[in-house]
Amino acid sequence: MNEKINFLIAGGDLRQVYTAKALSQEYNVYALGLSKNHINTDKINLIENIDDVPYEVDHIILPLPVSQDGEYINAPFSSRKIAASELIPHIKNGGIVFGGKFDDASQKIFTNSGIETIDYFDREELNVLNAVPTAEGAVQIAMEETASTIYGQNILITGFGRISKVLIKILNGMGANVTVTARKYSDLAWAEIYGCKSVHTSSLHECIDKFDIIFNTVPAVLFDEYMLNKLRKDTLMIDLASKPGGVDFDIAGKLGLKVIWALSLPGKVAPVSSGEIIAGTVLNILKERGKSDD
Amino acid sequence: MNEKINFLIAGGDLRQVYTAKALSQEYNVYALGLSKNHINTDKINLIENIDDVPYEVDHIILPLPVSQDGEYINAPFSSRKIAASELIPHIKNGGIVFGGKFDDASQKIFTNSGIETIDYFDREELNVLNAVPTAEGAVQIAMEETASTIYGQNILITGFGRISKVLIKILNGMGANVTVTARKYSDLAWAEIYGCKSVHTSSLHECIDKFDIIFNTVPAVLFDEYMLNKLRKDTLMIDLASKPGGVDFDIAGKLGLKVIWALSLPGKVAPVSSGEIIAGTVLNILKERGKSDD
Amino acid sequence: MNEKINFLIAGGDLRQVYTAKALSQEYNVYALGLSKNHINTDKINLIENIDDVPYEVDHIILPLPVSQDGEYINAPFSSRKIAASELIPHIKNGGIVFGGKFDDASQKIFTNSGIETIDYFDREELNVLNAVPTAEGAVQIAMEETASTIYGQNILITGFGRISKVLIKILNGMGANVTVTARKYSDLAWAEIYGCKSVHTSSLHECIDKFDIIFNTVPAVLFDEYMLNKLRKDTLMIDLASKPGGVDFDIAGKLGLKVIWALSLPGKVAPVSSGEIIAGTVLNILKERGKSDD
Amino acid sequence: MNEKINFLIAGGDLRQVYTAKALSQEYNVYALGLSKNHINTDKINLIENIDDVPYEVDHIILPLPVSQDGEYINAPFSSRKIAASELIPHIKNGGIVFGGKFDDASQKIFTNSGIETIDYFDREELNVLNAVPTAEGAVQIAMEETASTIYGQNILITGFGRISKVLIKILNGMGANVTVTARKYSDLAWAEIYGCKSVHTSSLHECIDKFDIIFNTVPAVLFDEYMLNKLRKDTLMIDLASKPGGVDFDIAGKLGLKVIWALSLPGKVAPVSSGEIIAGTVLNILKERGKSDD
Repeated sequence: MNEKINFLIAGGDLRQVYTAKALSQEYNVYALGLSKNHINTDKINLIENIDDVPYEVDHIILPLPVSQDGEYINAPFSSRKIAASELIPHIKNGGIVFGGKFDDASQKIFTNSGIETIDYFDREELNVLNAVPTAEGAVQIAMEETASTIYGQNILITGFGRISKVLIKILNGMGANVTVTARKYSDLAWAEIYGCKSVHTSSLHECIDKFDIIFNTVPAVLFDEYMLNKLRKDTLMIDLASKPGGVDFDIAGKLGLKVIWALSLPGKVAPVSSGEIIAGTVLNILKERGKSDD
Repeated sequence: MNEKINFLIAGGDLRQVYTAKALSQEYNVYALGLSKNHINTDKINLIENIDDVPYEVDHIILPLPVSQDGEYINAPFSSRKIAASELIPHIKNGGIVFGGKFDDASQKIFTNSGIETIDYFDREELNVLNAVPTAEGAVQIAMEETASTIYGQNILITGFGRISKVLIKILNGMGANVTVTARKYSDLAWAEIYGCKSVHTSSLHECIDKFDIIFNTVPAVLFDEYMLNKLRKDTLMIDLASKPGGVDFDIAGKLGLKVIWALSLPGKVAPVSSGEIIAGTVLNILKERGKSDD
Repeated sequence: MNEKINFLIAGGDLRQVYTAKALSQEYNVYALGLSKNHINTDKINLIENIDDVPYEVDHIILPLPVSQDGEYINAPFSSRKIAASELIPHIKNGGIVFGGKFDDASQKIFTNSGIETIDYFDREELNVLNAVPTAEGAVQIAMEETASTIYGQNILITGFGRISKVLIKILNGMGANVTVTARKYSDLAWAEIYGCKSVHTSSLHECIDKFDIIFNTVPAVLFDEYMLNKLRKDTLMIDLASKPGGVDFDIAGKLGLKVIWALSLPGKVAPVSSGEIIAGTVLNILKERGKSDD
Repeated sequence: MNEKINFLIAGGDLRQVYTAKALSQEYNVYALGLSKNHINTDKINLIENIDDVPYEVDHIILPLPVSQDGEYINAPFSSRKIAASELIPHIKNGGIVFGGKFDDASQKIFTNSGIETIDYFDREELNVLNAVPTAEGAVQIAMEETASTIYGQNILITGFGRISKVLIKILNGMGANVTVTARKYSDLAWAEIYGCKSVHTSSLHECIDKFDIIFNTVPAVLFDEYMLNKLRKDTLMIDLASKPGGVDFDIAGKLGLKVIWALSLPGKVAPVSSGEIIAGTVLNILKERGKSDD
């Protein structure tokens, strides 16, 4: 019998492929609902049917998001549907079902059978590390959309959360003139310590016409009609904020402003890194539980 | 009548001198209990007696700490004692008494008279900015105490709080090989993003003998007998943690280890900056209250 | 009469457009052979015929490269041809004709008439500043061509010239693990001071299989059959070296390696910055000659 | 017989001690004229008399500088004098005598006997790496001599040589506002790329009163009466330039300016690193000659 932990990776896109690859360096990995084209290594046991798993696995890893309908696993690369309930008989007693952005319905399918679920998307370290592909993707968009170097550009970053911190580091390395706006004086203090200029949000309207590029990370409409009217027409806005976004897109459109709403960048620009981040987070959780080999 | 805000700076050491100087660039400043040797500018009205203030001031700024005995203001440069109660008649209605690390007794002297007090040492931005002189002072000690460059040294920083973040920035700029140890995986993720190696505290004992210099910022005895016995004899430890410190000094002494407990660095290594930080914090508070000129 | 210097910008692509725009902030600028679509500002006098210049200009700025055939100015945006000789009567006595990569034939057209020519492409500061768009463009390619973040990648840079230095700065800011290879020990020392690992070119074959991305800046075939055979198949090579390039492309192709030969990046990825750099360089030259307003 | 290279380290101060220690990690090392207090390791054979070397050594390493009088080796830690000529019989045929800042007389003692000498102080990588302790020492002085943090200070660096480049890196990491002055536009371009402001030397007089700290690295009197008169009285000047220095000290004294002439910092602030740099340089030379083990 094998001493290594056995993982079943079920469904998902390229990120699940690379989660599987990352884990297969040290653990036994079964992959269900992924395609041969992507799983080009002997180290992963690609199966077509859940019954092809020869024994109960220790843990199951579901994609991000887990499901669109609360019943079937999100599996864009799979030719056949994978019901969440199918997986239940194949996990060991005490095993954990990991998933990203679990919806209530699919979570209950497992918990009602006494199986623990953990949402890796709730883990702070995953969100910290995901800020890296998000920030890199945002910078890539800025490079592609402008005819100037990032070096020397006047760039505004709104907010001082995870994405902003990584953006600051990258943009300062590239020699941009970075200004951070935030409401908390301590955030402004940090921004200055990290080599930026800072402006309190309440004074932003006074200098908003100075920026060549604006990265918005604040999920509240900071850029309303009043502010958009003060913007230069050649300013590029890249909105990284989820849900409502930070820009009134209708008005921006009427004003002829250039706004790019860039969401879910990690999976798009860096599926390899995204998969590795998920794998690392799952291992951290197991380590905390005393369930890893280390 | 003067439209500018009037401040009374009472007591304190060099930091109060520089708080006064910073504020005097834009405001009317009266200074009580400071010496002529330090207040070498016409912009500050140095007074010897509180009754020399010609009118009620808007706000009073007391030192850090405010008082040693709960009755008299901490005033090492003053030839005469300044009772907290003396100041009360000289502040306008609605004025604020600012102080650092207010003790209950001296705070009550003001609040019992209906005067609001604010402890600027509770402000996050002050503590963030104070991390800069603390980190610089710690690096200065490391430079003075070693015969090697900081460049190329293997350096451990414990914890990932304010001081650690600034230390990382400085030491990376100097080309040290910095490792951060912490308990939260998200802190370890950030440390790596900021260019450091990271090790979970639970594994620290395995590599603790690799470091030339250790900066401790964690106020809990991480370096107990077990850990100290694993240290190299030539490792320099600089303990920046308050209260109990992070090192068992008795055992460190018996083992012949070199430990420097460095406290209250901002006031010691950079009184000018410390004073400016206090001035800036006071102005931020007034701005939030809508009481500044800006 | 106007005291400002008068420039004639003749021919060229987007870079000339932005050279014109940059100079028009402070000087009188006439533009010949550029299109209305690009010159969308009143500050520049766009002319269709050289005879539309109302007086002799102080200096003429020709594109990079000046000419393809040694007779006509390189003018891709122009509907009519512009002969170099046409320009001669329109420049003041003592004026300078600036151009990039002057060929002998077109240079002689001016010098034979007693007009001084200066090749701005020979200026060191222009080549230093051009390293910025080159390095940014190279990083953009790396971002577009890989499914991982730059953060955490093992990256090799060959050589330690201008482009390498800027690449190091950007890639370190992004958190890559950068190794520099060079022949001079002093270059290796600098690379380490700038936060990289270093390996002498003579030992490169021993570790060449460790890299995810290779940026070549050395214009000599470092990557011959022997080295290419040692490369991992999934390594991305970006060759920034001019003339022969640094890679044996035939063998790389046979081995199925991914090589991108990226030339002339400044004009492609950042014509605005390229134009501004040319404008700045021309002004530096005039300043040295004592011919500027400053 | 031993296959390892045998080195004789003769004379010198702490730097020679650490050169010996660095080499003793991999090679056989004999040390002459150093004291027991410093050589506290079994790996080094400390000898009191040159005749205690049991066989001819491969190479000899002399101190920096080699000699004060051209006859005896500079040996401050030694109780007896060591004549350069004494060493001659103890070196193998084809061996090299390495030394720092060889004077003609002592060099001839060896070359007249057909022994090759190499001055390691002429090596570029040694001078590059020595810029690190020099820059760190200069920053340490600035920290000790000012009551402000380096963070936020307006700092001028004159010149853009080795020391300036390292200073820029350290000071930017500390959050200073760094301005570089130089004569070459390409140096100014580099300074800006490395995150500094730049000012051409010809315009320096216009802004010289803005700086809190000035690091001079240019060995020509840039700070003459005219410039010194324009300086603020509270500006700290640290002169790192050799020979004449960059400051007219007489006039600076009369004006009451604070100037520190800081020479030979590597040996003073970081003898360990200085010794390791010498050892590394000697090994590089041998590697180039094909005389190392590697």
